[in-house]
Amino acid sequence: MTERSGESALARSFKALSDPTRLRLLSLVAAHEGGEATVVDLTEPLDLTQPTVSHHLKILVEAGLLTREKRSVWSYYALVPGALGTLGRYLQDADAAWAPSKTRTRRR
Amino acid sequence: MTERSGESALARSFKALSDPTRLRLLSLVAAHEGGEATVVDLTEPLDLTQPTVSHHLKILVEAGLLTREKRSVWSYYALVPGALGTLGRYLQDADAAWAPSKTRTRRR
Repeated sequence: MTERSGESALARSFKALSDPTRLRLLSLVAAHEGGEATVVDLTEPLDLTQPTVSHHLKILVEAGLLTREKRSVWSYYALVPGALGTLGRYLQDADAAWAPSKTRTRRR
Repeated sequence: MTERSGESALARSFKALSDPTRLRLLSLVAAHEGGEATVVDLTEPLDLTQPTVSHHLKILVEAGLLTREKRSVWSYYALVPGALGTLGRYLQDADAAWAPSKTRTRRR
């Protein structure tokens, strides 16, 4: 059961990364002054409307990839430190663990 | 433009990984004898129908994560060596490159 719920959490993170706009959003947030950005900072470089950008930001927050902090009237988004690295390590570990062994026999 | 199309290919790979069943499928294929499996080998452990498993396998092949090799009447699926590792490295590189710098000033 733990393995299954781990896979669900992983799948949700990968789902958040499964859209080119959201990959761009992560890099734009990271590159913004102070490593944080508001929705207004992100609409122009993406040429998208505020509701669309807000929708994508929400998915990234729910997947644990961005934090959202409200200060005065604005919400500031920032990367969750290490979140992408954790996902990256999972894939690299899987790649190493799942690599075909040369000693295995191949069915014909 | 190259960056954008790179993001699309990445997004497609992450989309293939965005389903717990497909993550399970990759590990089942890898763990199967010879590092390869047919759709029939995979239906029972997943408790899914053959068309459903075939659908998921197709998505994994199209995303470049599995190979499909037809021999006699069966198609054998195997991991594309290094494909998960490449995705993992992208995320780890992004994590390192996008980590907030301690010297940056934080807006208040």
